[in-house]
Amino acid sequence: MPPDGLFDDSADDTRVAIMEATYEALVEYGYADLTIQRIADEFDKSKSLLYHHHDGKDDLLVDFLGVVLDYFEEGVALREEARADERLRSFLGAFATEDAGPSEELAGIVVELRAQAVHDDDYAAHFTRSNEFFRDHIADIVTDGIETGIFREVDPDRTASFLLTLANGAMTDDVTTDCPDATRGAREELDAYVENRLLRPEKR
Amino acid sequence: MPPDGLFDDSADDTRVAIMEATYEALVEYGYADLTIQRIADEFDKSKSLLYHHHDGKDDLLVDFLGVVLDYFEEGVALREEARADERLRSFLGAFATEDAGPSEELAGIVVELRAQAVHDDDYAAHFTRSNEFFRDHIADIVTDGIETGIFREVDPDRTASFLLTLANGAMTDDVTTDCPDATRGAREELDAYVENRLLRPEKR
Repeated sequence: MPPDGLFDDSADDTRVAIMEATYEALVEYGYADLTIQRIADEFDKSKSLLYHHHDGKDDLLVDFLGVVLDYFEEGVALREEARADERLRSFLGAFATEDAGPSEELAGIVVELRAQAVHDDDYAAHFTRSNEFFRDHIADIVTDGIETGIFREVDPDRTASFLLTLANGAMTDDVTTDCPDATRGAREELDAYVENRLLRPEKR
Repeated sequence: MPPDGLFDDSADDTRVAIMEATYEALVEYGYADLTIQRIADEFDKSKSLLYHHHDGKDDLLVDFLGVVLDYFEEGVALREEARADERLRSFLGAFATEDAGPSEELAGIVVELRAQAVHDDDYAAHFTRSNEFFRDHIADIVTDGIETGIFREVDPDRTASFLLTLANGAMTDDVTTDCPDATRGAREELDAYVENRLLRPEKR
């Protein structure tokens, strides 16, 4: 089942139903074995609505990807009252998946759709935009941490690029390998990085 | 074209030719649009050999993936005479792609095949094994660095998990987004991490 709120923002019931059907079909079959027919099988309304709205599987999926990435972007908790290090840990924690929960389903979908960007510029444009959004968001938190005297004078953009690469890598490893100890280890070392590299010693 | 040495180790000419044809078809069409017929179109020998050796597209691709991961594993330069920090930088540098070179083609193939692990246990088993191999390799370098007094007393497994997640994330970002500044930034911060977190101050 899709996480709460993933498709609720759309005012158009048909579009919500199409997105939900696409989600369920992706979870069940994966990108490679997905067909418009399999999405239609998950769709309660008239099939002609599905074909009317979209011009083939990739047209539908690129639209779906936009909705998913918007959801991730909207989910970025501002929590501007919290300390920069707490905001950073909370943000990076959102990239961790819970086993067999909606977040693991969604992470699997994102990893499969991201791989399409190797050969398809429309997917690449979405992931480039999304990476830029998250990188700017992390850099803002780091800048805030420096300005409020919590963090050392690191380079916010460079730090943000490093942390986003790590977060994307962790999400990918989570859903493509079975190494729970390694996942935990990487997360502990990320905490140590924030503490040792970013936090000023007197703020730890 | 495949990187030099990718398929040379096999004693069986037919298998080499199948692997080369699979590589070319993957680069041209990507996993999603790959068919056995498209691999056969890149194959100079009798098509029946192709069908004789493999039981469908995923059977062939899982075999291909094993060869590619073996190639990466064999490419791990031991260079045991070098200092641990140099060995670590050299190893992590191998995950960086050169634009439009064979390494970018190969990284794109790996990212596409890795995504299949979300829904296919055979792919997941390969990537789990491969992550374990590289993690052990990085942990050995870190242990060596600690024993020779170059590195601080960090946890080798935890550090290795963190660095491998970062390396896999960097490879994925490289071939699915167009953010060269971010790639460079992440790499610079990785160097800073090795210097500040791992190296002992007197060894910098």
